[in-house]
Amino acid sequence: MPKPLLRALTGEAVWPPPVWLMRQAGRYLPEYRALRAEAGDFLTLCMTPTLAAEVTLQPVRRFGMDAAILFSDILVVPWALGQALRFVEGEGPSLPPLRDGGALAALRPERLEGAIAPVLDTVARVRAALPGGCALIGFAGSPWTVACYMVEGGGGGDFPAARALAYADPDLFAALIEVLTEATTRYLAAQVEAGAECVMLFDSWAGLLPPALFEALVIDPTETIAAALKQRFPALPVIGFPRLAGGMLSLYAQEAGVDAVGIDTAQELRLAAAMVPEAMALQGNLDPYALLAGGEALRAQAEDILDAARGRPHVFNLGHGILPQTPPEHVAGLVRWVRDA
Amino acid sequence: MPKPLLRALTGEAVWPPPVWLMRQAGRYLPEYRALRAEAGDFLTLCMTPTLAAEVTLQPVRRFGMDAAILFSDILVVPWALGQALRFVEGEGPSLPPLRDGGALAALRPERLEGAIAPVLDTVARVRAALPGGCALIGFAGSPWTVACYMVEGGGGGDFPAARALAYADPDLFAALIEVLTEATTRYLAAQVEAGAECVMLFDSWAGLLPPALFEALVIDPTETIAAALKQRFPALPVIGFPRLAGGMLSLYAQEAGVDAVGIDTAQELRLAAAMVPEAMALQGNLDPYALLAGGEALRAQAEDILDAARGRPHVFNLGHGILPQTPPEHVAGLVRWVRDA
Repeated sequence: MPKPLLRALTGEAVWPPPVWLMRQAGRYLPEYRALRAEAGDFLTLCMTPTLAAEVTLQPVRRFGMDAAILFSDILVVPWALGQALRFVEGEGPSLPPLRDGGALAALRPERLEGAIAPVLDTVARVRAALPGGCALIGFAGSPWTVACYMVEGGGGGDFPAARALAYADPDLFAALIEVLTEATTRYLAAQVEAGAECVMLFDSWAGLLPPALFEALVIDPTETIAAALKQRFPALPVIGFPRLAGGMLSLYAQEAGVDAVGIDTAQELRLAAAMVPEAMALQGNLDPYALLAGGEALRAQAEDILDAARGRPHVFNLGHGILPQTPPEHVAGLVRWVRDA
Repeated sequence: MPKPLLRALTGEAVWPPPVWLMRQAGRYLPEYRALRAEAGDFLTLCMTPTLAAEVTLQPVRRFGMDAAILFSDILVVPWALGQALRFVEGEGPSLPPLRDGGALAALRPERLEGAIAPVLDTVARVRAALPGGCALIGFAGSPWTVACYMVEGGGGGDFPAARALAYADPDLFAALIEVLTEATTRYLAAQVEAGAECVMLFDSWAGLLPPALFEALVIDPTETIAAALKQRFPALPVIGFPRLAGGMLSLYAQEAGVDAVGIDTAQELRLAAAMVPEAMALQGNLDPYALLAGGEALRAQAEDILDAARGRPHVFNLGHGILPQTPPEHVAGLVRWVRDA
């Protein structure tokens, strides 16, 4: 019997739906905080297979999730390509901004395989340790979202330099996207070979783009990556998450070549369901603030989501990552409650 | 002959469409920066009628816009209700966070009319000085968006405290929204009496909410405000701008009681047009980064927008506020080009 997550991702309306939560491994868990303190900095944690595997498995053990998602960071790809990366405590990532051809030419795609070796070791360790019904998800950031951080030199959510560069030097930007598309394909393929059973592309900042750029910088690279992965691994389910895509979800679902779409918190799930093909799985979309609050508000929203997706292939999840201050008991209660639905 | 903006807002497919730009009065204009330096702080500028009127008129004179929009700030309402407000240079607004019943009870709705008197003076001055075909837009922030800043104690775009409070204490949050709904109605009605010919409600952070809260905190208060204004001023056009509403735009257009909807950058304008009634004007939705870039990218995007809205009532605008580093020549070129369409 295939695992429930994989059944849902390949178009089956599994009931109750499989459940996992974006950022299910992380700061809201005391066992994560203990391990993090031991590792020192965040990048070391991501790049130490014993620790990263343990962190990946923590929420699976505690809550019995239907999926483990590799504990890593979307900026592993630029780091593996040679862009310096630091995580500043309380401030997020910091990189030397990439804004000209010289900085682009300095990237070293041939370094990728060597640099990601510890991540692949983590994948293999997690896969070997997974309980029976739990599936392992590999992941990467989508080229547009990763490019945002690379050009900006950090996070912040607004990415003015990246958005300006996409217009000011479209050729440079396209070349950067191409490098990332190629590297991301290799990165995800390597995760699959190491044991990932499906992959997810996080395009957290897709919603910053107007329609024409959304097509060129979100849909097209996703399609290239998905097609290349499918060629090597025809049965591999690919989940795309174009966050805040709004009305563009429809075109994305038709053209990006993914099997499932992550739905963000702002989307009404019934409307989203009407925008994607019947056989395409929907993943989402509980508000992380509802999970933080718990109680009746959480229950009502979770119930509405289950109801909206009933009869369709659905993976119960959040619409955005879990908040660090979320009480673990709320997560346990939610999972229990989805299972009993 | 009514002014082009008012014709479009009342359902006429004016060609070429009237044009104005969100934040058309502001830092990208050298004449604004000069006047700002004279005024000292931002709140003083907003509250000094001679200066605020001059700033409002600057882009009208320079570019011949079809609309002037009152130069002010959405946080004038909490300030007028007695919540202390400072604008910290380079950091945005700062207020003492409102997170309990005591802070809510400390608001003084009866202070509103006295506090906003200088704003109304500005409105009257601008109206008297407007060139013939140019219409005056009054505005306010929508209750949800203003509440975000009031609860958070500032901006930042993520508003974790406000979003958490909306779940954790729905009664307190509803009471705050009610106070704001009532105050915003009075504020906008006073602007109309002082000379505003239409009004716009900015709900910049509408996209943070999941569907049920979007209905309760965005659509319902907007409907209450629009209905109250229409009762007093039956012919008054009301523009709503639920930024990043995505698929919720459809319900908003049906139920919020507005005559026109601002469309954000992420929406495909043809899809947005299909989501709202035929007679409802669409306002938008050029990417401010395209305007910053200028050249062919700007022209192609502007052309696509004109084409998408052709045959519908449309007000050409941005999908988000103009960026401070935008060259004024790009704005001049855009306006000329829309006029010659």
